[in-house]
Amino acid sequence: MPSPLQNDTFLRACLGEAVPVTPVWLMRQAGRYLPEYRATRARAGSFMGLATNPDFATEVTLQPIDRYALDAAILFSDILTVPDAMGLGLSFAEGEGPRFERPLRDEAAVARLEVPDMARLRYVFDAVASIRRALAGRVPLIGFSGSPWTLACYMVEGAGSDDYRLVKTMLYARPDLLHRILAINAEAVALYLNAQIDAGAQAVMIFDSWGGVLADGAFQRFSLDYTRQVLRRLKREADGRRVPHIVFTKGGGPWLEAIGALGADVVGVDWTVHLGQARARVGAAVALQGNLDPNVLFAGAEAIRGEVAATLASFHAGSAPGPNGHVFNLGHGISQHTPPEHVSVLVDAVHELSRPYHAPAGT
Amino acid sequence: MPSPLQNDTFLRACLGEAVPVTPVWLMRQAGRYLPEYRATRARAGSFMGLATNPDFATEVTLQPIDRYALDAAILFSDILTVPDAMGLGLSFAEGEGPRFERPLRDEAAVARLEVPDMARLRYVFDAVASIRRALAGRVPLIGFSGSPWTLACYMVEGAGSDDYRLVKTMLYARPDLLHRILAINAEAVALYLNAQIDAGAQAVMIFDSWGGVLADGAFQRFSLDYTRQVLRRLKREADGRRVPHIVFTKGGGPWLEAIGALGADVVGVDWTVHLGQARARVGAAVALQGNLDPNVLFAGAEAIRGEVAATLASFHAGSAPGPNGHVFNLGHGISQHTPPEHVSVLVDAVHELSRPYHAPAGT
Repeated sequence: MPSPLQNDTFLRACLGEAVPVTPVWLMRQAGRYLPEYRATRARAGSFMGLATNPDFATEVTLQPIDRYALDAAILFSDILTVPDAMGLGLSFAEGEGPRFERPLRDEAAVARLEVPDMARLRYVFDAVASIRRALAGRVPLIGFSGSPWTLACYMVEGAGSDDYRLVKTMLYARPDLLHRILAINAEAVALYLNAQIDAGAQAVMIFDSWGGVLADGAFQRFSLDYTRQVLRRLKREADGRRVPHIVFTKGGGPWLEAIGALGADVVGVDWTVHLGQARARVGAAVALQGNLDPNVLFAGAEAIRGEVAATLASFHAGSAPGPNGHVFNLGHGISQHTPPEHVSVLVDAVHELSRPYHAPAGT
Repeated sequence: MPSPLQNDTFLRACLGEAVPVTPVWLMRQAGRYLPEYRATRARAGSFMGLATNPDFATEVTLQPIDRYALDAAILFSDILTVPDAMGLGLSFAEGEGPRFERPLRDEAAVARLEVPDMARLRYVFDAVASIRRALAGRVPLIGFSGSPWTLACYMVEGAGSDDYRLVKTMLYARPDLLHRILAINAEAVALYLNAQIDAGAQAVMIFDSWGGVLADGAFQRFSLDYTRQVLRRLKREADGRRVPHIVFTKGGGPWLEAIGALGADVVGVDWTVHLGQARARVGAAVALQGNLDPNVLFAGAEAIRGEVAATLASFHAGSAPGPNGHVFNLGHGISQHTPPEHVSVLVDAVHELSRPYHAPAGT
């Protein structure tokens, strides 16, 4: 029997419901900028040792919740767990990004690809259940996955890339191969997110981190269409409560209308977007999540408060659709170089400075 | 006495005038993907040896013009010549990007910064004059500079960056310092481009390569305003002919209306933008340059022709403002890994497939 939720501001804002203050959480809030995270990471021995152990994952997921007045927790995991479960062989070299031993480079490799048995991802679902218990209803827990396209980028490139040359060569030269990868990814991601919901995730987010590198036209066919396939298969409720679906395309500004029409409850936006204009483009039925530049956190308290105020004001500019439907966040993951005390300034400023926008008229 | 221009399609398209076919040139068309470039580079001994020698610069500028039916040449030079002339100490380590020995990291360094004596950039203007002579009127020559903001990124970071942490920290924490750098850069860039025009450049382009990393609001104050200052100071004519001004902000899609209102003749756009929608946003008085994903050139001839056709069709979608005002280009520099023979396919496809759009009605 799960503990009753003590702070549902985040879930309510995702669904466009009235809230007393704008809720806030930060992408990568459980991460290297926190000394307590680095201590756990050292005990775990490696990044994979940390990410695949439900106890460690629980510990680091709760660290920012203990330190800051955040309104949501997000599962600590890696974006590449699903392709790893497909047998591509994920590894992390010290000081480098992720790498696959067996990237998808030819027709035979693509032909062999299959939707993985979710039992291989049991450690993730165990972590979700463990975190839910540890949170004991303090804030809701967000589950997540990479989008089919973003996973495909890593699966074909085998690592991060500056130019996405290999996956885009496949896109333009052998679109049939890429479509097969994406169809399998869409099915796998939907199963993966639904299993996270079953394990206790109270909202789920699809990170289309590399959607923004696609050309207009290609984005719609190779990213958006497969994100839509995932969303159509996702569970909508758990424990009798709606599970919000969040889609975040980094660099997705050019396609906000189309992203807003996907059927997700919340669209995440990066800092290049003006929130008021974005609201007009996605429509009043969709909430927005974002969008402070993480580099603001390197400035002093006064500058941080000023930028928080500007972000809140941009959401409420015009204000025709009312004050609801905003989840404050960064426009990208928090930098490992962030001074931890600056995050307090940010979180407190969001709550304090957003309150007047939510006050009933006349108060 | 300059040779008469034999192919003015590019200049005419920049000014929205009627042309028989859509002109095409490619960002970084003189570069590493060409074996003849690599041979000249080897003779020059180093990248700086190549870029600072007018004879070598002339040779490599003409190489793609000799090989392909391109409609414009662009000065071979480096984007960081101006900060180098300011005394920041540019160097290129083998296999790495550019690096400054003395980046602008504190108030004292910013206070010492001055607009450089253009005599220090004489080698660039000599290259422009030499290239004009060598071209002998075959196609027009484009001069260029980095934008004030893009130069400032390198000047503060000291090298390329993934997150622009140092320059954005200055932006949010000490905007006064950044504004001083940008004001000096704007003056220097205007002097630099005007000297290129005096030396024979028939069009000039401002590369705001890193404008797209800025947040909405910050882009307008720290990039756009200073690009506008440059444009206001630029010469409009040379040899009795209009010198088109081109502005390209990589990732500038969110701000196309504002960029289109800068007063430039041409706005360059990357591949995330739909050309027909971009036309509607910048207005009929401004031409567009772009916007094929350079990765298309890794596919085969049929796919390249298909993507060229799609790009041309996107420009002419709706077509209310008529068929003119398009300069075909990539949405970013050509990759060093591009097969040279694929560039022929691209260039010839642009000319062949655009001709019907430009035919007089009824023919």
